[in-house]
Amino acid sequence: MSKINPISGFPEFLPSDRIVEQHFLDVIRETFELHGFASIETRAVEPVERLSNQGEDADKEIYGIRRLAATADDDSGANLGLHFDLTVPFARYVLEHSGKLAFPFRRYQIQKVWRGERPQEGRYREFTQADIDIVDSGELPNHYEVELPLVIADALRKLPVPEFVIKVNNRKIPEGFYRGLGLDDVTTVLRIVDKIDKIGPDKVVERLVEAGATDKQAKLAVQLADISSTDTSFVEQVRALGVEHPTLDEGLEQLGAVMAAAAEHAPGLLMADLRIARGLDYYTGAVYEIYLVGQESFGSVGGGGRYDALASDGRTTYPGVGISIGVSRLVHRLISLGLLKGSRSTPTAVLIALTAEEDRAEAMRTAAALRQRGIPVEVAPAAAKFGKQIKFADRRGIPFVWFSTDNGPEVKDIRSGEQVPADPATWTPPGEDVRPQIEALEENS
Amino acid sequence: MSKINPISGFPEFLPSDRIVEQHFLDVIRETFELHGFASIETRAVEPVERLSNQGEDADKEIYGIRRLAATADDDSGANLGLHFDLTVPFARYVLEHSGKLAFPFRRYQIQKVWRGERPQEGRYREFTQADIDIVDSGELPNHYEVELPLVIADALRKLPVPEFVIKVNNRKIPEGFYRGLGLDDVTTVLRIVDKIDKIGPDKVVERLVEAGATDKQAKLAVQLADISSTDTSFVEQVRALGVEHPTLDEGLEQLGAVMAAAAEHAPGLLMADLRIARGLDYYTGAVYEIYLVGQESFGSVGGGGRYDALASDGRTTYPGVGISIGVSRLVHRLISLGLLKGSRSTPTAVLIALTAEEDRAEAMRTAAALRQRGIPVEVAPAAAKFGKQIKFADRRGIPFVWFSTDNGPEVKDIRSGEQVPADPATWTPPGEDVRPQIEALEENS
Repeated sequence: MSKINPISGFPEFLPSDRIVEQHFLDVIRETFELHGFASIETRAVEPVERLSNQGEDADKEIYGIRRLAATADDDSGANLGLHFDLTVPFARYVLEHSGKLAFPFRRYQIQKVWRGERPQEGRYREFTQADIDIVDSGELPNHYEVELPLVIADALRKLPVPEFVIKVNNRKIPEGFYRGLGLDDVTTVLRIVDKIDKIGPDKVVERLVEAGATDKQAKLAVQLADISSTDTSFVEQVRALGVEHPTLDEGLEQLGAVMAAAAEHAPGLLMADLRIARGLDYYTGAVYEIYLVGQESFGSVGGGGRYDALASDGRTTYPGVGISIGVSRLVHRLISLGLLKGSRSTPTAVLIALTAEEDRAEAMRTAAALRQRGIPVEVAPAAAKFGKQIKFADRRGIPFVWFSTDNGPEVKDIRSGEQVPADPATWTPPGEDVRPQIEALEENS
Repeated sequence: MSKINPISGFPEFLPSDRIVEQHFLDVIRETFELHGFASIETRAVEPVERLSNQGEDADKEIYGIRRLAATADDDSGANLGLHFDLTVPFARYVLEHSGKLAFPFRRYQIQKVWRGERPQEGRYREFTQADIDIVDSGELPNHYEVELPLVIADALRKLPVPEFVIKVNNRKIPEGFYRGLGLDDVTTVLRIVDKIDKIGPDKVVERLVEAGATDKQAKLAVQLADISSTDTSFVEQVRALGVEHPTLDEGLEQLGAVMAAAAEHAPGLLMADLRIARGLDYYTGAVYEIYLVGQESFGSVGGGGRYDALASDGRTTYPGVGISIGVSRLVHRLISLGLLKGSRSTPTAVLIALTAEEDRAEAMRTAAALRQRGIPVEVAPAAAKFGKQIKFADRRGIPFVWFSTDNGPEVKDIRSGEQVPADPATWTPPGEDVRPQIEALEENS
């Protein structure tokens, strides 16, 4: 067997960091359920034709799968690819099961996705996303465009996450604006403007001109991308640029309504930012990106938007809106900044010490009695001296060691050294010691 | 977009069945943590060379992945395959991170795995497994071979699962027995005998003879596979066949110890069954298969074993033992038998009715107050008449609808029709209505 090397883009956690990730996933799930979202999981694979043509980036990123032992006449697994997000599979799930779902359908989905992009800091080829979406049959009310960021904010605020902002735009604004300007290849313009943070406004103007825009059109497109506000004042700033189009009016009205409602329910949570584009082509209305304040250069830790035409079977269309938390990106980021760690590397709160192998059966009964009351316990792997048992617990951060003594069972808090008599039927560790805790550390940066 | 068809072997749940699966996963996780197992997740992919050569079945089953847009000089993703179990990736994880783990290392892992086999009832190409393993550095005590089935039984007994039995064997018994008989190609003999349930004992004898055994050797091999006992009496039955080999002695002693200890801690849980083989080549000691009693023909719903040489870096070997619950197989089976279902299709316990769209802000505040106290709530999608709101809740199984009336807020139990005044700061539904319950139904079969 060859030497073992990590595979770039496929990160893994050690047990104590995994405890941090589990805490994030538990809080996110609990919050989504409190808001009435039902869990589903979709299979990891979709037909490649369904994954393709969702946007420039997506097409480059698909992993195909094939049975290594497949014979020529066995096409099973042919033309299947790993999903690169959870929205495209969800849209397919809705179409496939529409007869058995109740609309509007609120679902959450926490799963891995795969993207074959070039690995770089914070960009993974395999990562976990936590998505909420609401789809309806026929028409989707606009109020969901306000509700979803509130749900996401509710989850993130229960977590040890630094200050964040959800930036929001509406695809109809750039689309209407570009059309009003006379730029009709909206997708191309959008993709070029989307690079503004990477290449700067001058290069964007240059590329727009290369793509056929006049200098004036290009500059106005860049000016639009510069507009932002934490209230509805962005509307006036767009109007001041003097471009008119019915789609632009629609977009401004919808985003204005979102910002007005957000101001009532969660002042400061949303920022209208007309630079926000999202790389995927299926969005048609509101688009969101979640940023850690002051860490915008790291990129977003989540995002989403409204898609009106992704799920359609020709007869019925199921418009939807969704937002995703990039759990892996977020947790890896906070851990790598040294902001969070698990208080121990195991769920175990109590180690039952063994002085002789013959006592194992008795130790297992003690362990069972403690577990019955929700206390995580393990029995020592082998009979050993006092000091060795303490060391075993200490190495894993297990706070308590249980001993059989001539005076009956006793339990030692190995941090304080305090040792007291204990009855397996009644003794309970302090609440904060029963399960590993997430420790928020001082910022290292 | 082409018509949507399910992909054979990649099953998906509707929301109310997913609630059953989530309950299983929650109880399994909770039990594993109470027994001191730490969670890890490994990436979905491993180098193909690491996945290969783990057994006849495994090799046929590997899905390779490749970037669809990969160019000839870009070999990223080359020679990676989706894992077909969680043991091989875990062994690799142990080797990769051995310097940062504390041994013996107890871990659980609940993830999807993929196998490109021919789909048939209860055989999936994508399914979820829940594994526990304990690995040690250098030597692994035998008592873990008893502990692991006890943990699995603890989990299954907390679940609405029919009676089950864990059948256990020790690879050294057939190996020593075959060698004692003079059959030295143990792997080939094992694979042929493993087909006994499918093709019957006569065909097994025939195939063994084709593979070079004498008639007498073949018949004795089949006789061995026929031995079983719920106590240690299997030892005498093997002795009576008159075959001798030191490896056989070792296997009988180890399996005898497992059965003796199990009789003390969990009488009736284990059955020694010398037919149990497991299809994977890496097992070297105890092997387990979990069956639902009376449904043996469905195949096992879990299994595992001891592997002494899977994780080795040349200097250090990390022997391990593990058992896996085939969660997808088990849950799909129980649901398809009509034994289990979720009490509703959504986490929502209370629907806040809306009589006018202007009341949405107030309804959202009521919802937030209820959620604060752990009650899953959603606000009606649109203002509508009384009857329509009740129908909306009824269709999803939501038990309570919250109304604003001229006398203040009231809540209606739509099952009984009872409607009472309610304060968002204090009203709480009965405990069993807060979350969806798993309903165990009468057996249909």
